[in-house]
Amino acid sequence: MRVFIIKANKAHTAYDFSLKDLPGTSGRIDVLCRFLNSAFLLSHGFRKNVRVWLSLYGPPNPPKAIRFEGQRMRPKTLNPDELSTAKLIVKALKAGEGLRDPSRELEVLPGIYVSNLSFEDIIRRTLRGATLYYLHEEGEPIEEVQFPSNVAFVLGDHEGLSGEDEAFLKGIAQKISVGRKSYLASHVVAHVNIFLDSLTPPP
Amino acid sequence: MRVFIIKANKAHTAYDFSLKDLPGTSGRIDVLCRFLNSAFLLSHGFRKNVRVWLSLYGPPNPPKAIRFEGQRMRPKTLNPDELSTAKLIVKALKAGEGLRDPSRELEVLPGIYVSNLSFEDIIRRTLRGATLYYLHEEGEPIEEVQFPSNVAFVLGDHEGLSGEDEAFLKGIAQKISVGRKSYLASHVVAHVNIFLDSLTPPP
Repeated sequence: MRVFIIKANKAHTAYDFSLKDLPGTSGRIDVLCRFLNSAFLLSHGFRKNVRVWLSLYGPPNPPKAIRFEGQRMRPKTLNPDELSTAKLIVKALKAGEGLRDPSRELEVLPGIYVSNLSFEDIIRRTLRGATLYYLHEEGEPIEEVQFPSNVAFVLGDHEGLSGEDEAFLKGIAQKISVGRKSYLASHVVAHVNIFLDSLTPPP
Repeated sequence: MRVFIIKANKAHTAYDFSLKDLPGTSGRIDVLCRFLNSAFLLSHGFRKNVRVWLSLYGPPNPPKAIRFEGQRMRPKTLNPDELSTAKLIVKALKAGEGLRDPSRELEVLPGIYVSNLSFEDIIRRTLRGATLYYLHEEGEPIEEVQFPSNVAFVLGDHEGLSGEDEAFLKGIAQKISVGRKSYLASHVVAHVNIFLDSLTPPP
């Protein structure tokens, strides 16, 4: 089981943006679309052993969390292109508008859930079932890590995690790295997935 | 120097598609947009040592070739999102409409060229300055390859290369692999870039 968690500090938490200009109007929801693509998709295939958490902290109603559960999603729900993925996120944000409960998850489509869970909530839930890694250019090289069968990876968006988030992760997530350059989150996830596939047995 | 070449058998060779539905109307130009993203972009950075060739064979006027030259491109020309990249491709296709010469390249924007060059033309030009590799799941593992300083990689689109293309590449391109699964072209390029960065010296 592989879990990928992204903290998106500016990603809008209601559908108040334009699908024609995601980078300019949505707080970079386009980054989240490519993240989902890299986490789940194979050429003509779908990774059922993946869970993705999008942790959205932009205006107007932070936090919002959207969970994508590979085991329950219908493979044709997620398509490779950004626009159709953005529409899934919009659907989740619309469904989440009336949610007041701080922890209840609402199933929007099979395997896709929206909630008011915070980044800390997501991390605590994840720790119950998986070992946590924080992907950062200054971490231990991924080739040297011994991965257990259930792994979870935290990534920052284009602005990275805040000092506060890093302090929270200290002691509960091991810092690991895919290289010394600063890579786009979607490229890191594609690389990690292909790297994990090469292990015996793969997580 | 790194060269990435993709043969897109169905990608439209004129702007007769809808930017609102690239996967459904353009012969999968969305695949090419993500390919460019993976080839060139870093987090807040741009790889100047990269060249990309898009080899388009869809209707109505195949072949068309679009070359992206990292050394000459302005870094802000290429943005991470699909839609803005699709607009660059549209611009090149529009400029290429009147081209009759089989080999002349027209510069559309700094470092972006359109032409009627065929896949074979692109491969022949590339061989003059670089060692050619064909990325395929049955190739030699990438970790075992000794890369020279100028490398070029050929990839198929979502349908893969034809038997004819494979026959043409036989003997001139070494088959190498990033794993036994069949991955999306953009994921392979992201993985190859990160892998090459880890070599000393990196190509």
